[in-house]
Amino acid sequence: MHIDGDDAIQQAVRFGLFQILQAGARAEGRAIPAKGLTGPGYDGHAFWDTESFVLPLLTYSLPSAAADALKWRHSILGKARARAEQLGLSGAAFPWRTIAGEECSGYWPAGTGAFHVGADVADAVARFQLVAGDDDFARRFGTDLLVGTARLWASLGYFDAAGEFRIDGVTGPDEYSAIADNNVYTNLMAKRNLLAAIGALTAPQADRSRWPDVTDDELNTWQRAADHMRVAYDERLRVHPQADGFTDHAVWDFDGTDPSQYPLLLHFPYFDLYRKQVVKQADLVMALLRASHEFTDEQKQRDFEYYERLTVRDSSLSASIQAIIAAETGHLDLAYDYWGEAALMDLDDLEHNTRDGLHMASLAGSWLVAVAGFGGLRDTGGSLAFRPRLPAALRSLRFNLLWQGSHLNVAIGPREARYTCSGDSHIDLLHFGKAVRVGPDGTQVLAIPALPPRPRPRQPPGREPAQRGRQAE
Amino acid sequence: MHIDGDDAIQQAVRFGLFQILQAGARAEGRAIPAKGLTGPGYDGHAFWDTESFVLPLLTYSLPSAAADALKWRHSILGKARARAEQLGLSGAAFPWRTIAGEECSGYWPAGTGAFHVGADVADAVARFQLVAGDDDFARRFGTDLLVGTARLWASLGYFDAAGEFRIDGVTGPDEYSAIADNNVYTNLMAKRNLLAAIGALTAPQADRSRWPDVTDDELNTWQRAADHMRVAYDERLRVHPQADGFTDHAVWDFDGTDPSQYPLLLHFPYFDLYRKQVVKQADLVMALLRASHEFTDEQKQRDFEYYERLTVRDSSLSASIQAIIAAETGHLDLAYDYWGEAALMDLDDLEHNTRDGLHMASLAGSWLVAVAGFGGLRDTGGSLAFRPRLPAALRSLRFNLLWQGSHLNVAIGPREARYTCSGDSHIDLLHFGKAVRVGPDGTQVLAIPALPPRPRPRQPPGREPAQRGRQAE
Repeated sequence: MHIDGDDAIQQAVRFGLFQILQAGARAEGRAIPAKGLTGPGYDGHAFWDTESFVLPLLTYSLPSAAADALKWRHSILGKARARAEQLGLSGAAFPWRTIAGEECSGYWPAGTGAFHVGADVADAVARFQLVAGDDDFARRFGTDLLVGTARLWASLGYFDAAGEFRIDGVTGPDEYSAIADNNVYTNLMAKRNLLAAIGALTAPQADRSRWPDVTDDELNTWQRAADHMRVAYDERLRVHPQADGFTDHAVWDFDGTDPSQYPLLLHFPYFDLYRKQVVKQADLVMALLRASHEFTDEQKQRDFEYYERLTVRDSSLSASIQAIIAAETGHLDLAYDYWGEAALMDLDDLEHNTRDGLHMASLAGSWLVAVAGFGGLRDTGGSLAFRPRLPAALRSLRFNLLWQGSHLNVAIGPREARYTCSGDSHIDLLHFGKAVRVGPDGTQVLAIPALPPRPRPRQPPGREPAQRGRQAE
Repeated sequence: MHIDGDDAIQQAVRFGLFQILQAGARAEGRAIPAKGLTGPGYDGHAFWDTESFVLPLLTYSLPSAAADALKWRHSILGKARARAEQLGLSGAAFPWRTIAGEECSGYWPAGTGAFHVGADVADAVARFQLVAGDDDFARRFGTDLLVGTARLWASLGYFDAAGEFRIDGVTGPDEYSAIADNNVYTNLMAKRNLLAAIGALTAPQADRSRWPDVTDDELNTWQRAADHMRVAYDERLRVHPQADGFTDHAVWDFDGTDPSQYPLLLHFPYFDLYRKQVVKQADLVMALLRASHEFTDEQKQRDFEYYERLTVRDSSLSASIQAIIAAETGHLDLAYDYWGEAALMDLDDLEHNTRDGLHMASLAGSWLVAVAGFGGLRDTGGSLAFRPRLPAALRSLRFNLLWQGSHLNVAIGPREARYTCSGDSHIDLLHFGKAVRVGPDGTQVLAIPALPPRPRPRQPPGREPAQRGRQAE
């Protein structure tokens, strides 16, 4: 990772890469905890952060470590199946927080209720299999994980009278909401999970006979649930509500909240946070990233700007995701500001708790901002897509990815991007939606389209990120 | 209370009357706990049951005891105001369970979240003041209680973009749901609370100057909130959802539930109960009673029959309310069955826990079934209204009420009702909607209109009440 124009972030992202590799390179049969092995925070537990933040980095950088992390998930599949059964569900219910596979969260509305962890595991499996192209992993581990998690959604949701597939009473990523109907992130990730499981069982190379208990009826139900997955939309505001009814709630009184009252969870009761429009961390905005192909560009812009006004970033899981969608929606300097926060979280001890251990997700997130934010990488549509764009402060950004056995170097300048393939086979990618074939050992230099300026979105007063980019876009 | 035709219920209702008087006659400065002083159940705590079940009986039978109970509420008003402030609200937030006034519930979704307790207190105040006609009580205690609880609603709810007054993220009476938007019972009771507070401050005999901090603006806001209170209605099913979105949820799998799995709370996780259509205890049906004038007869019939199919009666607070609305909607023998359950709860130890103490609410409820169910008494419209009707098994039912200083004896037979006033002043009442004046020491004998037969509503399989009435209506 070479960042030309900001030595502090250059250092921080490399620090993050080192720490992620330190935590993940030899984890092997163990989970990668939220703090790695760097401190006592979260009691050594692993959460969805591993799959959602750490594994994308490992998948594109050290796939054997990503495979190890997913093999650990596979090793606790029996406990996840038992947990699902205990809850009256089918398939596998992965724990919200755990070391050895048992659910260790005592507060179910923000623990067991956050079923999206299963779809996050499936998302990581699908990404790993796409990027690593590892059929042996799929056969021995991946398909089991996809089938177990898909089954959970099929039993957790239901088809309502209008034929929509609903997932009621669950908790999305945002911890300032709980137990809501049809959280958009959860529903779209469940859809991806169901389709990935179908794909794994029906792909040409799949040996369906290894999963004899999955019937055609079951596959049809998964397909129907995916096709009819409910995604609410607020026609009045023309934005997606984070969950059903969210945008009908009162907006948090940001003007009446003193800067000393953040993080809000230490100063206000959950009953009040849950019932109002206030967002701890990217939730709908995370859906804009992980289910990118489900939204139009205009929806992304409107949704991002709407949720910017509500998001207080009381979680270290937020800044990197906001940075990525800020970059996609044309707010490059805002993205750059959030990048600084994600990358410097621990080196600058921004949350005053680095003594409890490093924020692995935020560190991995700072790599994600470079690759998915300024590189614009998206891989959930089945292809390797880029929409690179630099913030004004940077002269260039270069990073390396592993893709189906080849190396891809991406070098982004202000006006053009250079894709270089090292390896025996070519790499097919999309550059701003245009199909491009690179290499073997070849290079493609492609122009970056000009970006129309957009007014900078507003954040809750006092919760703006420290300005690292230019003062105004 | 004379019940001609069922000696067991006659005995049980008198047993209940004795126990309620035992618990309440000399409680004076103390709360009346859910178990009275008969056992260790609920650790001696008092709940909303006192105001909602016990106080109607005391108000019409021993008003000094009802006044004492409400004076106890007044004595903890300071703590309730402090609690509201702690929660970031105005007014008074009464505790869900308490002995000395502090909130003693540790599970906020079903404790603090159940804000309706404030409206239940206000309902009891309004009833007491209407029935007892005690201006001194109003001046010294009642208005403070009404103002404190009304203020809570004004700060807890808000006017949305469409101008509706919403109360989001609260828990209604049904403990198999929690933290929902616009629980109909809560919203309609809040409306009654707001209007009662306005009435108390603007009545001819009210001395507004004693509450100088209540501004005209505040009164106007209360009126506007009451006028625009949100009450959701499901146009497809033509029933009221218990709360927003309730009728969109999956219906509980009653056919797949074994009789040994009741009460459900001991066999299924709350996450699953909360997200489905399954009702522990009368909630929307309780709104049909306490906000009777807000519903048409047809709505009551449709709503009652809809919720009958979902209500498992895992709470002793349910049977009496179901009995009352069953009677109102023409299901007299079903009402009679529920009456047996409410009245015999402890004498027959129906829930196998009478060793923990008597169920005061159920005992008081058995009186309520006679008076509000078969007598059809409604008093929340500001008048004393009756719609008496006997189940087939009874030859007659007689009970006594105190009304504004006079005694009223109501004697109900199969075809006519006899209202007898003992006292210095007449009593104005409604008999099936027709205004009737019963003169000092006078009697009115009025015909009971014939009732068209209606098919008996269905309950979840295995959760039908034991048949006490005829086999079929």
